[in-house]
Amino acid sequence: MDKINIEKSNALAVDKMMSARPILVGVGRASDLIPNMQANLILHAGPPITWEKMSGPMKGAVIGGIIFENLAKNEEDAISMIEGGEIEFAPCHEFDSVGPMAGVTTASMQIYEIVNSTDGNKAYSNLNEGYGKVLRYGAYSEDVIKKLRWMNEEVAPVIADALASSDHGIDIRQLLSEALHMGDEGHNRNKAGSILYTAKLAPLIAKHCDNSSIASDVLQFLADNALSVLNPVMAGCKAMADAAHGIEGSTIMTVMARNGTELGVRISGLGDRWFTGPVGQPVGLYFPGFTSDDASGDIGDSTITETVGIGGFAMASAPAIVTFVSGTPQDALNATMEMYEITVSEHKHFTIPALDFRGTPVGVDIRKVVELGITPRINTGIAHKDAGVGQVGAGLVRPPMSVFEESLVAFAEHYGILD
Amino acid sequence: MDKINIEKSNALAVDKMMSARPILVGVGRASDLIPNMQANLILHAGPPITWEKMSGPMKGAVIGGIIFENLAKNEEDAISMIEGGEIEFAPCHEFDSVGPMAGVTTASMQIYEIVNSTDGNKAYSNLNEGYGKVLRYGAYSEDVIKKLRWMNEEVAPVIADALASSDHGIDIRQLLSEALHMGDEGHNRNKAGSILYTAKLAPLIAKHCDNSSIASDVLQFLADNALSVLNPVMAGCKAMADAAHGIEGSTIMTVMARNGTELGVRISGLGDRWFTGPVGQPVGLYFPGFTSDDASGDIGDSTITETVGIGGFAMASAPAIVTFVSGTPQDALNATMEMYEITVSEHKHFTIPALDFRGTPVGVDIRKVVELGITPRINTGIAHKDAGVGQVGAGLVRPPMSVFEESLVAFAEHYGILD
Repeated sequence: MDKINIEKSNALAVDKMMSARPILVGVGRASDLIPNMQANLILHAGPPITWEKMSGPMKGAVIGGIIFENLAKNEEDAISMIEGGEIEFAPCHEFDSVGPMAGVTTASMQIYEIVNSTDGNKAYSNLNEGYGKVLRYGAYSEDVIKKLRWMNEEVAPVIADALASSDHGIDIRQLLSEALHMGDEGHNRNKAGSILYTAKLAPLIAKHCDNSSIASDVLQFLADNALSVLNPVMAGCKAMADAAHGIEGSTIMTVMARNGTELGVRISGLGDRWFTGPVGQPVGLYFPGFTSDDASGDIGDSTITETVGIGGFAMASAPAIVTFVSGTPQDALNATMEMYEITVSEHKHFTIPALDFRGTPVGVDIRKVVELGITPRINTGIAHKDAGVGQVGAGLVRPPMSVFEESLVAFAEHYGILD
Repeated sequence: MDKINIEKSNALAVDKMMSARPILVGVGRASDLIPNMQANLILHAGPPITWEKMSGPMKGAVIGGIIFENLAKNEEDAISMIEGGEIEFAPCHEFDSVGPMAGVTTASMQIYEIVNSTDGNKAYSNLNEGYGKVLRYGAYSEDVIKKLRWMNEEVAPVIADALASSDHGIDIRQLLSEALHMGDEGHNRNKAGSILYTAKLAPLIAKHCDNSSIASDVLQFLADNALSVLNPVMAGCKAMADAAHGIEGSTIMTVMARNGTELGVRISGLGDRWFTGPVGQPVGLYFPGFTSDDASGDIGDSTITETVGIGGFAMASAPAIVTFVSGTPQDALNATMEMYEITVSEHKHFTIPALDFRGTPVGVDIRKVVELGITPRINTGIAHKDAGVGQVGAGLVRPPMSVFEESLVAFAEHYGILD
C-alpha cells in the first residue's frame, strides 16, 4: 500500500462534502426509486439490528410498517410474520436512504429523491408525518396508519407533480444556508426551512394541482409542520456525506446513526464497515406528563445533519432552540464552539451570523475525537421507550466514545500504521 | 389641571402599545376603507409637506400616484395639476395609515386593513411592490404603473378573498414574535415574516382562487419578495402605536415618520401636533453603481416599527442584517442595548433569543432621549435623490435631536411644569 496522507485525504473528503449540491428532484415509490428495494424488506434507522434487540419505538414502527404494507392485519400477525422469518431488515443507510427516529421505510412508501448535482450520487428519505402520535416514534394505531395512507395517496402525488413541474428542483444546500440565517440549526429546529420549503412549493402546487381542496390541505399540512423539510434535508445531508465517503486514507466520519439500541458510525477511509456501541440517553425537556423514565435510547438517522456540520454543530445559529431542548443561548453557542475542536474545516456554504458569519464546524476527524475526548453533539427528539406511544420530549445527547476508539484502531490496522 | 404622573402615564401608554393585538382582517380600496379619503387626495409618508419642498423620490411617487389614478396621462400633466392646486396632500398618519418610503397612497389603491382586537382601532397600509424600480422609491415609468395595476387588479383581490375566508385573519403580533426568533428585526429584514405570511396565505389562496395560474403568480410574488409582509407589519405597528397615543401626561413617542425632507414625531400626551426637523442622511451599503452622493434624505413611515420596539431596536435578533445595512453582528447587538437606555419597558411579546429572551426595548421616552443625548436607531432603505430612479441601498440613520428637544419643551409648556 502507498503511504497515506491523512491530512490530504481528509481535506479532499470534507471538500467533497461541502461541494456536494443536493437537489430535491422528485417524489416516488420506494420500490421504484431505491435500488434492490423488496416488498418484504423494512429499512430502519441506525446500524443493523435484529428484531429481538430492537427498542420499543423501533418495534412499534416495524409493526406499523408491516400493517401499512398490508402484509399483516394487526400487531399479532405482524409479529408472527417477523418471527417466522418472512420479513427482512436492513439499515436505511445501506440503501442510500435515511429516516428520522425509527426511520422505517417500506416498499410502497412514497419517498423524496435527492440528486447531488456535483457528483451525481442519489439519496432518499420518507415523508415527514408531523408531530403527535406518528410511526417514526413507534406509534402504529389505526389513525397513524390512516394518516400514512393519506400522505402516500394524497400528499405525495401533489408534491411529486409540483417538483416535476419545477425547472431545477429545490436546492437543499441553498435552503439550509438561508435557514441557518433564520434561527434554524437544521436538525431539531427546521422551522424556517419548513416554511421556506412550503413557500417554494406553494406556487407550483397552486398551479399544478387540479383539486383546490387537496392543494389547500397539502399546503396546510406542510405549513403547519415545523419539520416538513427535515426529511428532504436529511436526504440532502446523506447525499453530502456520501460524496465524502470512500476516500482512501480519510479519518472523516461519514455516517452516524442510531437504531434506539446501538449507535453506529462509518468512516470515509474504511468502506462500509459499521462501528457500533450502546446508544446514550438524551437529556432534555419532556412534554407534560412524561419524564426521563419514559425515554427510549437515542434513535434515528437524523444525526446525518451533525455528520455534515449542522444540527448540534450549528446550534449557535439557533438560540431559540433552547426552549425546546433545554439550556441557555450561551450553551447553544458553546456547543458550536466545542465542535470546532473535533472537525477539520469550516463550512463554506453554512455560516453563522452570530459568529461573524464563521462557517459551521464540518468534517468530524475520529483522531481528534479520541485525542481530545470530545464526542459529537447531537440534537434529538426523544421517543417513548414503549412501542405505540410516540414522542415525549427533545434534548441533547452524545455518541459513545467506544465507536470512535474502535474505528481508529481499525483504521490503524487497515492502513498498517500501528506502531 | 390635575397634577400629572408622567411615570404612570408612560406605563399605561406602553402597556397599551404592548397589549394591542393587530389582526390583518382584509384588503379593500382606500376610498372604501379610509375615512374621508378623497379622489384628489394623495397620502404620503412623514409629516405634512408641500409640493415645493418635497424630495425627488417623493415627487416621483406623487407623479406616479396621479398617473395611476388616471387623473393625468403623464408627468407634465400631473405637475400642472399639482401646480394648479387640483391635488391635495396629507400625511398617511393623519388618515390612520402608513406607507414605506414615499408612502404614496391614492383613493383607488387596494390597501391592507388591520384591526387592533384589544382596543378596536384600525390602521391601513398599501401593498408592497417588491424590489427594483417601484413607486415607493420614486419611480413612475410605465412598467412601474403597470405593475401597480396588476397588483391592484389581480394580486389584491386574491389576498382579499383569502383573508375573507380565514376564520380569524392573520395575527400580526404573533407573526412578528415568531419572525424575531427567526432572524428578522421586522423593518429592513422581514425575510422570515414574509415567508410566514406566504405560508399562512397559501392554503387559503389555493382553496379560494378559481384561477390556478393567477393563484400561482400571486404566491410566487409573495414568496419571492422578502418584504411582502412589511406593509401589513407597518399597519400592525401603527395600530399598536395608536393604542398608546393620547394618554394624558405621557412622554412616549407614538409616531416617528419621514417625508424625505423632514422627520416628524408625535408624543402620546401632546395630541396630534407634529414636531419636525431636517431628516438625516442614512449611512449604509450601496447597490453596485451607486454612492452616498446619490442618496435621498431619510424617508418613509416604516419607522413606525422602531416606534413600537422592533426594527432598529430589535437588531440583536437579526445579526444577518449587517450584510444589508453594514456593520458587524456586534454592532447589531449594541444597537439594541443602546435603545434600552431611552425606553421605558421591555416588550412582553417581542423577545430576543440571543439576549436570553429579553424583551425588545419599547416605548421611547422623549425625556430620556434629551437627557442622555441618545436618539432612536433607525434601519432604512435608501432611495435615489432624483425622481424616477428607485432604491440605491440600505443603512442606518437617526432622527434629529431637535425634534425631541422641541417636543419636550412643548410638553413642559402644555402641562405647565416649566420651572
